[in-house]
Amino acid sequence: MSGTIDELLMIPGPTDISGEVLKEMSSKTVAHYGEDWTEYYNETRSLIKNILHTDNDLFLFVGSGHAAIDASLGSLLEEGDEVLVLSNGIFGNKLARISRLHKAEVTVLEKEWGKAFNPGRVDNFLKESQKDFKAMLMVDVETSTGIRNPVRELAEVAQKHDLISFVDGVCSIGVEEFYMDEWNIDFCVTASQKGLGAPPGLAIVCLNDRIWQAIDDRNSEIRGWYLNLKIMKEFEEKQKGWQPYGITMAVHNVMALKKALELIEKEGLKNRIKRHRESAEFFRKSIRELGLEVLAEEKHACSAVTAVKNPEGFDSSFIIDRLQENNIRIGNGLGEFAGDYIRVGHMNQGAARVSLYPVISVLEEILEKRKKSKNGIV
Amino acid sequence: MSGTIDELLMIPGPTDISGEVLKEMSSKTVAHYGEDWTEYYNETRSLIKNILHTDNDLFLFVGSGHAAIDASLGSLLEEGDEVLVLSNGIFGNKLARISRLHKAEVTVLEKEWGKAFNPGRVDNFLKESQKDFKAMLMVDVETSTGIRNPVRELAEVAQKHDLISFVDGVCSIGVEEFYMDEWNIDFCVTASQKGLGAPPGLAIVCLNDRIWQAIDDRNSEIRGWYLNLKIMKEFEEKQKGWQPYGITMAVHNVMALKKALELIEKEGLKNRIKRHRESAEFFRKSIRELGLEVLAEEKHACSAVTAVKNPEGFDSSFIIDRLQENNIRIGNGLGEFAGDYIRVGHMNQGAARVSLYPVISVLEEILEKRKKSKNGIV
Repeated sequence: MSGTIDELLMIPGPTDISGEVLKEMSSKTVAHYGEDWTEYYNETRSLIKNILHTDNDLFLFVGSGHAAIDASLGSLLEEGDEVLVLSNGIFGNKLARISRLHKAEVTVLEKEWGKAFNPGRVDNFLKESQKDFKAMLMVDVETSTGIRNPVRELAEVAQKHDLISFVDGVCSIGVEEFYMDEWNIDFCVTASQKGLGAPPGLAIVCLNDRIWQAIDDRNSEIRGWYLNLKIMKEFEEKQKGWQPYGITMAVHNVMALKKALELIEKEGLKNRIKRHRESAEFFRKSIRELGLEVLAEEKHACSAVTAVKNPEGFDSSFIIDRLQENNIRIGNGLGEFAGDYIRVGHMNQGAARVSLYPVISVLEEILEKRKKSKNGIV
Repeated sequence: MSGTIDELLMIPGPTDISGEVLKEMSSKTVAHYGEDWTEYYNETRSLIKNILHTDNDLFLFVGSGHAAIDASLGSLLEEGDEVLVLSNGIFGNKLARISRLHKAEVTVLEKEWGKAFNPGRVDNFLKESQKDFKAMLMVDVETSTGIRNPVRELAEVAQKHDLISFVDGVCSIGVEEFYMDEWNIDFCVTASQKGLGAPPGLAIVCLNDRIWQAIDDRNSEIRGWYLNLKIMKEFEEKQKGWQPYGITMAVHNVMALKKALELIEKEGLKNRIKRHRESAEFFRKSIRELGLEVLAEEKHACSAVTAVKNPEGFDSSFIIDRLQENNIRIGNGLGEFAGDYIRVGHMNQGAARVSLYPVISVLEEILEKRKKSKNGIV
């Protein structure tokens, strides 16, 4: 926002995105309804469905990822519903908190931060549990630690126990493989500004018929209007072909998202996922070569973000400040890891050596300076 | 979105906005937190408060105007609360529907569409009513009809009867005078894309201490997380100076809004309001000179949008299509007026003769063609 040198934005979202996408943001305003617009809007939704590998219903909300989570959980859950939340980070805890605010009875299965859930153990927990859970809620990529939970296998466990599976895919969709239908994931959410490579502003909710059935089976009405999936469906059906929602859509954000999705299609989803995986692997390898520790266990490390333990004697703000002096912006650890870890996002433009080298180089400089200073050279 | 000639967007929001504002939308992405950003964000909020003439707390939600209404009513109302809704159009009815979805007991005082509420009659109604209302909800400018309710006097009536006053200012703030504190309005909402002259995507909620007290006095917890004002306040206090909210803010939309607000300040709020009033008056006068009828009674006609009765024998789609052939986009009537009325927005770039002349000229052509055709000339 100021200064002569543009900042390299390597936080875990929003991230630097393509100039082509940004250009769409300054398009002339168009009406948020009409046949042409609806076709354009539906094409946008189809492109997202391609990434999710699904034929399910998909809605865009003007909102952040939290809006998508709140719309989903508020539409699904009612007073007294038992839900199981798998939590190994801030965003797992968030699922629990939001469920409670919708009056559900929440059981949290906790796992050490930085470690992924073991589907066999979750299966065992469910076998022994006396509770009649309605749904199992989990985070795909936990932005606070940089691990990816095995959502495919966890959704299988949920299915085996006849639970609805809900996946928070805010930080994973677009950079990790995700086969919603094949993996029997009933409900998933994401947002525009992470793996999809668009500016923040749009939240995405995708759900199958099992969820519609569960919503129809509710004993009480869904609270509120804006984040109410039943009302979304009502407009979708009533105003199909003209304005498949009841609000003023953030048209510029949709145009930018569509461009971002077209760029994903152009790159090829598989190529994009590979680029992100390889960039993340390269980053973790480089970090370890510097003698630093990555929080995530390697086999569950994700492609979107890496949490790095600060070198002894340095707190996060010191490292963040040194990077910022070099026009690089990274994130602090979250929750219990604030101060002791830094987090580097490597999505979109960030998933490339041209963006990763500067981060690694500054970290190297910090460590070398310390070494020299310890040796009494500086 | 296609074609060689840019469409003149004269729907009742979003509207054509300044190129300077659009340019901000394609700014490089920045972090949604940090000291610099928070200062910038708070400046944005201050500029809105200047327009509302208030010192109250003000929150931005990533969302449409409906998000602001839902956040407000869901935070204020709980099961069993009695509320009085003044309704003389679609958006008045919407306040009733949303209140009911938050389990309030709703009494709707109806008024003929196109007419404004009479504060004396509302006062009488309240004197005679046996109900213990908690709040009175009203729409400032009713987008469906183009009237402005006398919110100042209505808020006085609410105050006299010790009711909380809530004003839906989505279509008025930025183009109509609004003195929240002086007029004792407790709660008001607006959005980025109407009178404030920015792209859609941000919803605005402003509330005074009386509302915080009412929220504290609730017997039940507010449902949900995203549209929960108590949680907004929690983050505001906990993360003051760094990230006064718990979500990923739509940073581009905030930058565009800030620019739009700076342009309002540069033009001068009084000048802007005068420009809108004079443009609206000019438009209504021109419409009447064509022999057409304006829905709103003149003394309560607003400055944002005009609903015009279609000339006999023409339905809205005919007129809308003729305008569209000339690259001008206007809106259909809403609700019971769909088909029989057209609606023309004249906010922002639209509040100028350069934008109004084309609309008037095409309408004139339609009428002349009919005249000629009736005279057997064509």
